[in-house]
Amino acid sequence: MKFRDRQRLASLVVFIIGLAFGPQSLAQVDPMPSWNDGPAKQAVIAFVKTTTDSASATFVPLTHRIATFDQDGTLWVEHPLYTQVVYCLERVPALVNQKPELANVEPFRTVLSGDRSVIAKLSTDDLVKILAATLSGMSVDEFQGEVRTWLDTARDPRWRRPYTELTYLPMAELLKYLRANGFRTYIVTGGGQDFVRVYSEQVYGIPPEQVVGTAGGTHYGYDRNGRPTLTKEPKLLLNDDNAGKPEGIHLIIGRRPYAAFGNSIGDRQMLEYTKTGAGARLAMLLLHDDAQRECAYGPALGLPNTKVGTFTQALYDEAKKQGWAVISMRNDWKRIFAFDH
Amino acid sequence: MKFRDRQRLASLVVFIIGLAFGPQSLAQVDPMPSWNDGPAKQAVIAFVKTTTDSASATFVPLTHRIATFDQDGTLWVEHPLYTQVVYCLERVPALVNQKPELANVEPFRTVLSGDRSVIAKLSTDDLVKILAATLSGMSVDEFQGEVRTWLDTARDPRWRRPYTELTYLPMAELLKYLRANGFRTYIVTGGGQDFVRVYSEQVYGIPPEQVVGTAGGTHYGYDRNGRPTLTKEPKLLLNDDNAGKPEGIHLIIGRRPYAAFGNSIGDRQMLEYTKTGAGARLAMLLLHDDAQRECAYGPALGLPNTKVGTFTQALYDEAKKQGWAVISMRNDWKRIFAFDH
Repeated sequence: MKFRDRQRLASLVVFIIGLAFGPQSLAQVDPMPSWNDGPAKQAVIAFVKTTTDSASATFVPLTHRIATFDQDGTLWVEHPLYTQVVYCLERVPALVNQKPELANVEPFRTVLSGDRSVIAKLSTDDLVKILAATLSGMSVDEFQGEVRTWLDTARDPRWRRPYTELTYLPMAELLKYLRANGFRTYIVTGGGQDFVRVYSEQVYGIPPEQVVGTAGGTHYGYDRNGRPTLTKEPKLLLNDDNAGKPEGIHLIIGRRPYAAFGNSIGDRQMLEYTKTGAGARLAMLLLHDDAQRECAYGPALGLPNTKVGTFTQALYDEAKKQGWAVISMRNDWKRIFAFDH
Repeated sequence: MKFRDRQRLASLVVFIIGLAFGPQSLAQVDPMPSWNDGPAKQAVIAFVKTTTDSASATFVPLTHRIATFDQDGTLWVEHPLYTQVVYCLERVPALVNQKPELANVEPFRTVLSGDRSVIAKLSTDDLVKILAATLSGMSVDEFQGEVRTWLDTARDPRWRRPYTELTYLPMAELLKYLRANGFRTYIVTGGGQDFVRVYSEQVYGIPPEQVVGTAGGTHYGYDRNGRPTLTKEPKLLLNDDNAGKPEGIHLIIGRRPYAAFGNSIGDRQMLEYTKTGAGARLAMLLLHDDAQRECAYGPALGLPNTKVGTFTQALYDEAKKQGWAVISMRNDWKRIFAFDH
């Protein structure tokens, strides 16, 4: 085929694509059907319009379109325990099987007892010991296999479903809507980067390289067969929470997001960093105010503090002052989970 | 337009695209015209064919196609000094302007003297002091501005051109060829991540988030106007050289590359890690053996060691043993730079 013929065909292709998938036909489809119409949904749609319309003064070039999402409490359930903490606790028996000397050492003995009321009272120092023992010391490949096996079999006690089904359907729609408009979606989590990367692609459509999380060092060495191996070390490289979120975004992504989504004081700096960039920026906070369908917690609701991410009154006040949009689970979401009917 | 009509149109579009841009027509265009036909070029083409042909036993899904490139000596000239070291040395006068007390402190006094023969003899400890002073202590935004200004005005002494023009045309073609086949191209450099990210998109078509490099910490705080600011700290987070390259790849990317390209002992572990993955993997070493058009250096050529990346005989031997392809600048490349004629 000659070059000129190819050019003509290319023009025809563009014309036909325009007919088939043009803005007229797209506008008829609601990109976020699980959202009620309201200020939260409107804030998202207005943001996408102003950043992707090339005639807009706040147009954002394709390569700059980055959106970051906290995970626990923003993309999936975090209450009463972060899923990764459940993993670490449930991993203890297998760990003690490999290292029987731990059976009589605290805090492992307490975890083995299975007594939930005592386990719930473990100190932060004890939890750090359990996390270090279950998240390091093995090869990256072994760790990924252990997490995959656990995710396949573990069920949460309330919904009796795999943890990976406890993702919020409206947020899944939001991720897809942003991606359909050229945004690259990142997870920026206080949870473990290696843990989330195991399932992020399958569960959220977010590939491992777009997961920023708390990260330990690895050591490059050789296994007993002389094959190169990366071993997970207990050394902390990035504590990706609070100020660590914008620091982690700089380390892994290298530019400021145009949109950021969170639900707790650990997300404050990420939202602030995002919203104070030039041009149109979107910062949104998810409020857990739906005790019936999910949970209601946090001092902003006059409810007691919890061990998990906290939505304080000060954070609520700052959201109003800085122009961050608040998503009310109860009012803004028609459905919470894909399994809701 | 009805859904069924749209489906028919979509099929038509796919058919026409096949006519216009099918493999028959693409095969007529040489994707790497600056390469001589030879084992290096053939290794690249065979690798792309076997990983992108869906009928191949070693087909690689689109999301897994990752290729990593060392920068200094692999994508652009590294001899006689890494460009970033030149930047740091040439930045010293401006630094002393801000902090006059450094004028009489070594090694800054030596650098200010401008005596190249003495500067060339600075110890590694002295260089580390100069790098720390010129690469940290300022905000990320200020640093990016300083690097941009320098790149716009600095000229290398041999070719008398901006450093960003000293990139290898055959490698630029290789980057584009891999990207056209669905590979995401990453830089994995011992150089500074923040430094390379300033120009990577413009120079290589590689966005900041696809640059892995030696990285220091940042501190999230507020400037005198109360605006959030990331300040570059002298604390080293990732020394992205030698074993640090696969460790850095795991930290930033989270999966093993299918292809890797380097030129020195600092790239050994990255090539080894890449090549020992399952399926078809490509590892290539660039040999600087063209004294006339670029440089010839390294013990593998019986030439003296240099301060920059070193191609040793042991590395050469390992390349043969492990099946890494060697690119000879002299024999494999028709042109070296875009400005060559």
